[in-house]
Amino acid sequence: MTFPAVPIVAAPMGGGPSTPELVAAVSGAGGLGFLAAGYRTAEAVAEDVRATRELTAAPIGVNVFVPGAPADPATYAPYVERLRAEGHPVGEPRWEDDAYAAKLDLLASDPVAVVSFTFGCPDAAVVRRLQAAGSTVWVTVTSVDEARAAVAAGADALVAQGVEAGAHRGSFADDAGDLTLLVLLQLLRAATDVPLVASGGIASGAGVAAALAAGARAAQLGTAFLRCPEAGTAPVHRDAVATAAPTRITRAFTGRQARGIVNRFLAEHTDGAPAAYPEGHHATAPVRAAARAAGDADALHLWAGQAHELAREVPAGELVRALAAEARDALAAAGSALR
Amino acid sequence: MTFPAVPIVAAPMGGGPSTPELVAAVSGAGGLGFLAAGYRTAEAVAEDVRATRELTAAPIGVNVFVPGAPADPATYAPYVERLRAEGHPVGEPRWEDDAYAAKLDLLASDPVAVVSFTFGCPDAAVVRRLQAAGSTVWVTVTSVDEARAAVAAGADALVAQGVEAGAHRGSFADDAGDLTLLVLLQLLRAATDVPLVASGGIASGAGVAAALAAGARAAQLGTAFLRCPEAGTAPVHRDAVATAAPTRITRAFTGRQARGIVNRFLAEHTDGAPAAYPEGHHATAPVRAAARAAGDADALHLWAGQAHELAREVPAGELVRALAAEARDALAAAGSALR
Repeated sequence: MTFPAVPIVAAPMGGGPSTPELVAAVSGAGGLGFLAAGYRTAEAVAEDVRATRELTAAPIGVNVFVPGAPADPATYAPYVERLRAEGHPVGEPRWEDDAYAAKLDLLASDPVAVVSFTFGCPDAAVVRRLQAAGSTVWVTVTSVDEARAAVAAGADALVAQGVEAGAHRGSFADDAGDLTLLVLLQLLRAATDVPLVASGGIASGAGVAAALAAGARAAQLGTAFLRCPEAGTAPVHRDAVATAAPTRITRAFTGRQARGIVNRFLAEHTDGAPAAYPEGHHATAPVRAAARAAGDADALHLWAGQAHELAREVPAGELVRALAAEARDALAAAGSALR
Repeated sequence: MTFPAVPIVAAPMGGGPSTPELVAAVSGAGGLGFLAAGYRTAEAVAEDVRATRELTAAPIGVNVFVPGAPADPATYAPYVERLRAEGHPVGEPRWEDDAYAAKLDLLASDPVAVVSFTFGCPDAAVVRRLQAAGSTVWVTVTSVDEARAAVAAGADALVAQGVEAGAHRGSFADDAGDLTLLVLLQLLRAATDVPLVASGGIASGAGVAAALAAGARAAQLGTAFLRCPEAGTAPVHRDAVATAAPTRITRAFTGRQARGIVNRFLAEHTDGAPAAYPEGHHATAPVRAAARAAGDADALHLWAGQAHELAREVPAGELVRALAAEARDALAAAGSALR
């Protein structure tokens, strides 16, 4: 496939929200749903793909994390020690590669329509292997330099992620700048002809229309789907998304820049949180698991994009159709302003 | 007037760039040019208005700074002392109100089509006075709360400024959040029916189209006009805008958050720069005047939005027409993607 009939993509949301039911509902409505392979074994991803296919025959996508390098323990040791001293249940701050090779093997042998990458640029050989298997390959970028590298590696399309996006910044290294989606789309349109998927802060049909007008072929929304009944969003997270609470970028929860709703853990631990991923993720995993189980909004990572309060509590397929209809209206209205 | 025939506004750019020639060229091409009243006496503003009217009969706008409160000297004394110790020619860090009352008297007695406000919300009585004189009143906002206050004060339209914008954040207090333009437009569209003017990071016809698609009635561009021959941009600033150098928000130059191209002064003085406007402006004014005279890109405030490298070296009227034509094409292309 190249792009879905309805240019709306459900972003891969690791850690629970992107269930097979959510992915199937979005793809079934003519958009494109994404499973999140991150934090899961290759076997669990295979099972997710199988479960999704039982629900829909429509094309689906799978997102894979590109592994980085281990951090020097000296960079995260003081942070881990501080968490421990504060009484938090701290996990082992270990590095691992999120089963990268096994996931690539799975996707090469049992291909899906689109494989997208986050946290880095896959090697050209990896891109070619997946393309040879029949998949389209997307790479997430946050800057023009990253875009050039992804195009050089053979990416079929770029997911342009602006700073307003919820959850992790998809930059290759943990040094993303602060380009907003609208700026990034304009800079990328001037730098490359590769198709763009717009990501970050899109939460309405007008937002979808704006992304398309800025030159994107599709709009990828994550936070906008968090309140859908098909999403596996934790109840405490679901409630927070529905408020107008401010968001902030932090490394406190995982050792990598990510945008979440400001809560006590984020406010108290952003300063001093190290750039060490996934060591930071594993260190705080028990803290977050306990918070999720207890429904404690003050210690859970409440990933959300800046426009989270606009997320609607409606079935995902209905949301895709509503956003597309609103986007059509928005483009027509904009056209009449340019009389 | 309500909105210009071509929905493109040249942002008021204080300190030199927004000359009568630039304003007249933009308004003459069917857009709306803005004079910047900030940092000038009421008499100088009256002269700018007169000079602009000699060049065009088209509607024009004037932007006025709303004064804030004096800062406690303790907040800026260490910064001023540090600059002095480093050998910089430091000015007196004094507070003043930018001749607010005199400028309002001028605009009430000799009205222009649109008066816009920045750095605060004018009193309802001020808004009514200007409206009674025949002007349309716009208020710059960076958040939903500011928008609600501006609507309550009677504003005819809101200039929605995203975090990607160049130069000063137009927030009421110096505590602007980090909402991007696309997010702010979506949130404001959900919160109010007042017409919106989109501002921040717009540098192409596709960007204009995106702003309109997101629900704005017009797009306001500043940095995009900095390289026009009619602009009074300092040569060293003009050169910097044409590069792909990164930008950053800083209080180093004026004591208020503003986005500029990263140079030595910005990099070395952002940490520790106080929230004290206009005291900070006056303290660093001699430093910046010397840098401008010497063509020193390392000590001048190189205000620029994130998309500055897309600014074109073309006459302003030509730029307005080109952006409008590109915006029309972008909307048509976006419409066909939503088939």
